[in-house]
Amino acid sequence: MTDEQEKGLDAPIRVGVLGARGRMGVEVCKAVDAAGDMDLVAMVDQGDWLFNASDAGAEVVVDFTTPDVVMDNLHWCIDQGISAVVGTTGFTEQRLERVRGWLERKPGVGVVIAPNFGIGAVLMMQFAAKAARHFESVEIIEQHHPRKLDAPSGTATHTARRIAAARAAAGLGPVPDATSAEVPGARGADIDGVRVHAVRATGLVAHQEVLFGTTGETLTIRHDSFDRASFMPGVLLAVRAVRHRPGLTIGIDELLD
Amino acid sequence: MTDEQEKGLDAPIRVGVLGARGRMGVEVCKAVDAAGDMDLVAMVDQGDWLFNASDAGAEVVVDFTTPDVVMDNLHWCIDQGISAVVGTTGFTEQRLERVRGWLERKPGVGVVIAPNFGIGAVLMMQFAAKAARHFESVEIIEQHHPRKLDAPSGTATHTARRIAAARAAAGLGPVPDATSAEVPGARGADIDGVRVHAVRATGLVAHQEVLFGTTGETLTIRHDSFDRASFMPGVLLAVRAVRHRPGLTIGIDELLD
Amino acid sequence: MTDEQEKGLDAPIRVGVLGARGRMGVEVCKAVDAAGDMDLVAMVDQGDWLFNASDAGAEVVVDFTTPDVVMDNLHWCIDQGISAVVGTTGFTEQRLERVRGWLERKPGVGVVIAPNFGIGAVLMMQFAAKAARHFESVEIIEQHHPRKLDAPSGTATHTARRIAAARAAAGLGPVPDATSAEVPGARGADIDGVRVHAVRATGLVAHQEVLFGTTGETLTIRHDSFDRASFMPGVLLAVRAVRHRPGLTIGIDELLD
Amino acid sequence: MTDEQEKGLDAPIRVGVLGARGRMGVEVCKAVDAAGDMDLVAMVDQGDWLFNASDAGAEVVVDFTTPDVVMDNLHWCIDQGISAVVGTTGFTEQRLERVRGWLERKPGVGVVIAPNFGIGAVLMMQFAAKAARHFESVEIIEQHHPRKLDAPSGTATHTARRIAAARAAAGLGPVPDATSAEVPGARGADIDGVRVHAVRATGLVAHQEVLFGTTGETLTIRHDSFDRASFMPGVLLAVRAVRHRPGLTIGIDELLD
Repeated sequence: MTDEQEKGLDAPIRVGVLGARGRMGVEVCKAVDAAGDMDLVAMVDQGDWLFNASDAGAEVVVDFTTPDVVMDNLHWCIDQGISAVVGTTGFTEQRLERVRGWLERKPGVGVVIAPNFGIGAVLMMQFAAKAARHFESVEIIEQHHPRKLDAPSGTATHTARRIAAARAAAGLGPVPDATSAEVPGARGADIDGVRVHAVRATGLVAHQEVLFGTTGETLTIRHDSFDRASFMPGVLLAVRAVRHRPGLTIGIDELLD
Repeated sequence: MTDEQEKGLDAPIRVGVLGARGRMGVEVCKAVDAAGDMDLVAMVDQGDWLFNASDAGAEVVVDFTTPDVVMDNLHWCIDQGISAVVGTTGFTEQRLERVRGWLERKPGVGVVIAPNFGIGAVLMMQFAAKAARHFESVEIIEQHHPRKLDAPSGTATHTARRIAAARAAAGLGPVPDATSAEVPGARGADIDGVRVHAVRATGLVAHQEVLFGTTGETLTIRHDSFDRASFMPGVLLAVRAVRHRPGLTIGIDELLD
Repeated sequence: MTDEQEKGLDAPIRVGVLGARGRMGVEVCKAVDAAGDMDLVAMVDQGDWLFNASDAGAEVVVDFTTPDVVMDNLHWCIDQGISAVVGTTGFTEQRLERVRGWLERKPGVGVVIAPNFGIGAVLMMQFAAKAARHFESVEIIEQHHPRKLDAPSGTATHTARRIAAARAAAGLGPVPDATSAEVPGARGADIDGVRVHAVRATGLVAHQEVLFGTTGETLTIRHDSFDRASFMPGVLLAVRAVRHRPGLTIGIDELLD
Repeated sequence: MTDEQEKGLDAPIRVGVLGARGRMGVEVCKAVDAAGDMDLVAMVDQGDWLFNASDAGAEVVVDFTTPDVVMDNLHWCIDQGISAVVGTTGFTEQRLERVRGWLERKPGVGVVIAPNFGIGAVLMMQFAAKAARHFESVEIIEQHHPRKLDAPSGTATHTARRIAAARAAAGLGPVPDATSAEVPGARGADIDGVRVHAVRATGLVAHQEVLFGTTGETLTIRHDSFDRASFMPGVLLAVRAVRHRPGLTIGIDELLD
């Protein structure tokens, strides 16, 4: 919370939530309600009228609904001149193009669509991409509960790819590795040349560590996420930012600068 | 090492070392010698002629000497048109002004003066300063061998100050802390509102962890340094960069971008 | 779960829960219900008859009630020949003596009273006490959410005291520490000569690290607890063990061997 | 060092070193020399007389030589009534039998033969074996410098086997793991049902983490070794203990109790 917000110099941001009774929507409603600089003016879910949001004077709408309704929701918001923060999944390049088209006709409106609102996870990836070119070695260790189906996690794979791209851009060759006798799997999965290890254990939630090494030193960036409330600071950040960012913004990366 | 360097498209950088028989100088000589894109052309120490470096055609000089001779060394280098990378301590604002004056008259020459050539430590501080405004909570835990005299370490204090400044700039208030019954010292030292804990144990070398926390998640940036060889990648980075950076550069922060 | 339990060779243990609608009681009921080798036969809370438990044939009763009723509950259980696992607080030495007295007259009945059912926390303390005499240095870093009132935590203080006792018994002198310039608090709280650091940050739950160091190596024992469900494996362990341990057992330490 | 030792109530232990000019032997000589309760009375290497050790009155001999001479050395020591601490490798069951035979005829003499004198590593394995039966999940992450040829390390493999044996003895089934989509290697090597991940990075030395998990909590045991001096406390411990342990002792495990 900034001083400005605490002093209440700004009027609160009027926020409507679409998908308000869903798992994430409930958390968003709680978080908006608790934020000193926002008013929760509309909670809309299946069977409710979208016009509830406009009638209540919403300036920003947060959408955690489903791929089959999110495009209609967005079209309506943009038409109404309401900015939107979207956590719903299923955005293909084609869909993004259509959103861009709608926004062109409404120059004052902003839309933020993000696959991941976790500030910690996004910063971890940014820092990892930045550090990548300065270290000879890098490996990723991700740790999750044992009910997870994929290994490694999507975030770990994405991080590995960004690191690999940064290494390639800096002209770095392969990481040093003299392993000549390996029990299969010991050295992890190879994602674009970056070794990724997936640990699974009861008691864990969602954790990731990126380990960089060079002569005589290591740098470790670690992210621990304990519950889905961890996405809320990123959602609120996007709500605050979207009013000043006309057009389409993908991901919250740029909002963090 | 970049592909370009490996292919040898560039001629090697000709490097002279001042203070070549000192503790750090010996490491620098080894590192320059091992670098594929550099030639170690002169090793100068107390009692040797500086002209050995110019006679050998040094393009860049690395100076790890002492506060009483470093200004003379620098004056001579700049006069000769040789760029310099300086790890010697004792640079006051007054001294830096004098170096800037000498450089103005030699527009092609560059000088990098850095208090810390550890790439890991410098990145840790950069990342911490960037993350600071996005997290409600932050604490620093530094860990060193028990022969260390000061607690907390200079790096920890410096990191805390940068974090505190970033929080202030973002309008963040004090970190939340309900502690009402404290055994004296349990909550660490207060450096500009950031709690810093100094751990001392045999077997440790030099380690620092910055822990950020917000609702449901934490982000940890950790640096482990095992020996003074860890400064060498930063020195080599500065040697490569200084030729393209006329004028005075303080610290290696900007060289990492 | 052992093979034997899975094969159902043993009849399930019949378990009654006292304080079944309390915060911990609810968790115990869920855990007993989910355990393949137990049957939840009675859930008793304020206003219910204790005889529900005996009528239902409970062999073991778990008591998470309050200090004002727990003694009556225990007296009744022992009289009925029902063994008990007790997590209720407030047991003075005097109270323990009374329980011992009751048990003497019922030689087949067992009672386990434990201040902490977290297997991880108890093992951490055991291991720390065992390692203590082999390392020159030791420090404790505990990390909790910022709503915690005391610093350091009770567990950290208790761990420090056990370590200090083990060091004294082994004839170890003070830990090495050359600190001569300390910002107040940097070196943590002094608990019987062991330095303890208390970190507080939003996003954390309950964590503790014990760091041991000697020449060239460190050994770290770390415990992370994420929710109160973490006490349940310890409660179930005690339920299984209490039937074969007549008399009074304090803590779950011995049950872990 | 115990108070008793510091007060010098005991006469110092007279120690001879065989293989005194080897890599490990040099470290042993330094460590014995620095220990307040020992006197380094003989340094023997290739070409020197073993009788130097007996002439100097050695009570204990430390042997870091080679498999081809160690049996002769041991035979001689036992004959002379000198106890021995042996770090030399290559001991088959057959060789151990021969040593036992020699010792039977010299009831007062003790011999300790250990594959690993690192107290931290040995305690890590002991604690892991003890914790194993109390946690549903367990994985091992070992981290080494990239010049290492085998993955996972011998210590990690040995730890995994001890954990697997402890789980089997407790009747625990396989660790839970719902992974159905795995990039090959992501889930690590399978050592007797325990997943082991081998991380390799410049800057690392030798590190191992054993992670245990159960409902709502994890317990982590981590060992960091920075240089071969880390074996010396274990060697000194064995020197002190061997005088009171007639017969053959394998490993330093029992000496730690």
